[in-house]
Amino acid sequence: MKASDVVKLCGRAKEASRKLALTDERTKNRALAAIANALIRNIPYLLKENAGDIAYAKGKGLSKALIDRLTLSPSRISAMAASLKAIAKLKDPVGEIIETVRRPNGLIIKKVRVPIGVILIIYESRPNVTSDCAGLCLKAGNAVILRGGSEAIRSNTAIYNIMSRAASGLGRGSFQMITDTHRSVVNALLRQEGLIDLVMPRGGESLIKEVAKRSRIPVIKHYKGVCHVYVDEYADLKMAGEICLNAKVQRPGVCNAMETMLVHRNIAKKFLPSMIRRFKEAGVRIRGCNATRVIAPGVKAATEKDWYTEYLDLILSVRVVGNVDEAIRHIMKYGSYHSDAIVTKNRKNASRFLRGVDSACVYLNASTRFTDGGEFGKGAEIGISTDKIHARGPMGLKELTSYKYIIHGKGQIRK
Amino acid sequence: MKASDVVKLCGRAKEASRKLALTDERTKNRALAAIANALIRNIPYLLKENAGDIAYAKGKGLSKALIDRLTLSPSRISAMAASLKAIAKLKDPVGEIIETVRRPNGLIIKKVRVPIGVILIIYESRPNVTSDCAGLCLKAGNAVILRGGSEAIRSNTAIYNIMSRAASGLGRGSFQMITDTHRSVVNALLRQEGLIDLVMPRGGESLIKEVAKRSRIPVIKHYKGVCHVYVDEYADLKMAGEICLNAKVQRPGVCNAMETMLVHRNIAKKFLPSMIRRFKEAGVRIRGCNATRVIAPGVKAATEKDWYTEYLDLILSVRVVGNVDEAIRHIMKYGSYHSDAIVTKNRKNASRFLRGVDSACVYLNASTRFTDGGEFGKGAEIGISTDKIHARGPMGLKELTSYKYIIHGKGQIRK
Repeated sequence: MKASDVVKLCGRAKEASRKLALTDERTKNRALAAIANALIRNIPYLLKENAGDIAYAKGKGLSKALIDRLTLSPSRISAMAASLKAIAKLKDPVGEIIETVRRPNGLIIKKVRVPIGVILIIYESRPNVTSDCAGLCLKAGNAVILRGGSEAIRSNTAIYNIMSRAASGLGRGSFQMITDTHRSVVNALLRQEGLIDLVMPRGGESLIKEVAKRSRIPVIKHYKGVCHVYVDEYADLKMAGEICLNAKVQRPGVCNAMETMLVHRNIAKKFLPSMIRRFKEAGVRIRGCNATRVIAPGVKAATEKDWYTEYLDLILSVRVVGNVDEAIRHIMKYGSYHSDAIVTKNRKNASRFLRGVDSACVYLNASTRFTDGGEFGKGAEIGISTDKIHARGPMGLKELTSYKYIIHGKGQIRK
Repeated sequence: MKASDVVKLCGRAKEASRKLALTDERTKNRALAAIANALIRNIPYLLKENAGDIAYAKGKGLSKALIDRLTLSPSRISAMAASLKAIAKLKDPVGEIIETVRRPNGLIIKKVRVPIGVILIIYESRPNVTSDCAGLCLKAGNAVILRGGSEAIRSNTAIYNIMSRAASGLGRGSFQMITDTHRSVVNALLRQEGLIDLVMPRGGESLIKEVAKRSRIPVIKHYKGVCHVYVDEYADLKMAGEICLNAKVQRPGVCNAMETMLVHRNIAKKFLPSMIRRFKEAGVRIRGCNATRVIAPGVKAATEKDWYTEYLDLILSVRVVGNVDEAIRHIMKYGSYHSDAIVTKNRKNASRFLRGVDSACVYLNASTRFTDGGEFGKGAEIGISTDKIHARGPMGLKELTSYKYIIHGKGQIRK
């Protein structure tokens, strides 16, 4: 794919985005339903194309975890279709009047929600990202350019073909896929700052860093989640035990799972031994600080690197701290500002923690696992932003929009 | 300045930003008042340092316009102080609860406004930007790193010295200035994506493009304003005349001034001759399309380049169009998505224009000159964003904030 073709493709997306911005909700919902139905109808075709990717991945000796993420099944395809139908049911954010201001000179200034325009999604592995992201972008009135990983290229292309046939009425630039996986194509895309409005990389840290480094277009990053639960000296220890267990083991491979447990020293002797036993029963391997290892001999020593690590696995770092401020300092130094929790009955410590921890989601007496678009009532999410610009935390439809000011006058001029 | 010094400076800013985020409104307002008073007390010192910059600029043969922008006077310094006192009077945006959601499982999710963190401002010429930006960032709880142009270095340093002495209680990282104007220092700053949260370049197009190209940190751009007024066939022509005159001549050197007037062909013969006469009386030079030049012989021909140009001067492009859609297409092709207006009494055409023109501010029957933080009721502005990510149009205190979610639970775990 030549650089000039990239420009043409982005130009088509820009043109389509202008049409999409003015497309009514019913038309968008009908397209989403048509795509969902077409996915179900084409299960055999999708499985056949997916088998090609899997055979290639196995031949290249890719990891079992990666092959699992890559694999489609009838139930996974049904889930993709269900997700699109759920998106169709969400309220259209476009056109919402966010704010109305009447000025002394009679001007009426309305802040109105509008689509962002053209969104580029660069992602890896999971083929369901193709339909999920296209569905969310479409409902929010954005044109989308999808660039998946080479390992899923046959599956992604099949999903894309089904989508664009089912929703052909929307204009051919509404969603487009890039199948040329050369780095030069991505680099050319990241220079189209006049045509693409936003880039969202979804994948490993190195992909995200590379995109942020090269892009001239605004990027919203979804980095890792090094999430903490701090068990305060005033915690209900039974509640703390349930929350910590849930945050670690309910689904350890996701970004909102706990990676480090911080425990106040005044309750460490009471809390840690039974807690560590429960973790071990659940298959969790512990890495502890010195104080932890004094209380629970046999626990492996945590290294400095451990505190920074997103294990995404049944591994947990444990540290004993002197007070809530020490817990906050640890989180701000080693964390990734994603989701962190305090368990306490003490109001002052709760308030100190909730104010002092500058993470996207800060919890009092609840599991970090709730950081999720669905759990937040947003219906669906395109990811969880660890940035502070534009959107933070779970990103739903609203976060895929911008706004403009519409000003009604009666001939006002500036004095 | 070595790269390691840049990292240290940014680290101090990050540390200070955490303290500032927790600083109460009264303390911030007191610091703003102290800076304002100190500026007034130090007028002689400021004028002396400013004289040094002016002498240097004159010696280098810089343009009269640039020297004017550079020049401080007692009244300009008083205006800087007044602006800081006005910022102190604005409502503190930090801590505002934007939204509260109660979930079926009992979780209470609050979306709370918080500062962004550390903001880097790269700017040119006008020394008042130093105190204006520092004041706005401070009130919104952000630490700021200021990097002004070499032509104003003595003035900026003097203002900075006064500010940091007057507000020393806030911690020395709260505002910092970079006086080393080597390009390598800016490049090093733009790589501190872990320490700086946002970059705002304020200046010419080449500065903004260069920053957007090099930065790994999110950038909010304030590009040029190629603003249009479209006079529809159903316009009140008297109103249209007043609006167009105001939009062009009231202050031609600013980004919300009109650069191109679009006129419907059915009223062109009635509207244009007298309008062009009025413009000429006001000293405006006209560049017209062919149809304009048939109606008003003697008007200079507009080139393709003219339609893209932000004159910032008493020059106006004029084009006759066939209908509202042609006006929209012209604006979307040649404009800069800043501020555009339609003058009409026809509801359908008004709605078509207001929806179809994807600019930050779209006006019906009012001058484009109202695009301004003060005129929008925001009190003060740090600039006018032409981006669609995070903030669009006039940026006040609210636009200098982010948010976080604070979630109150009673032991909830994810099922």
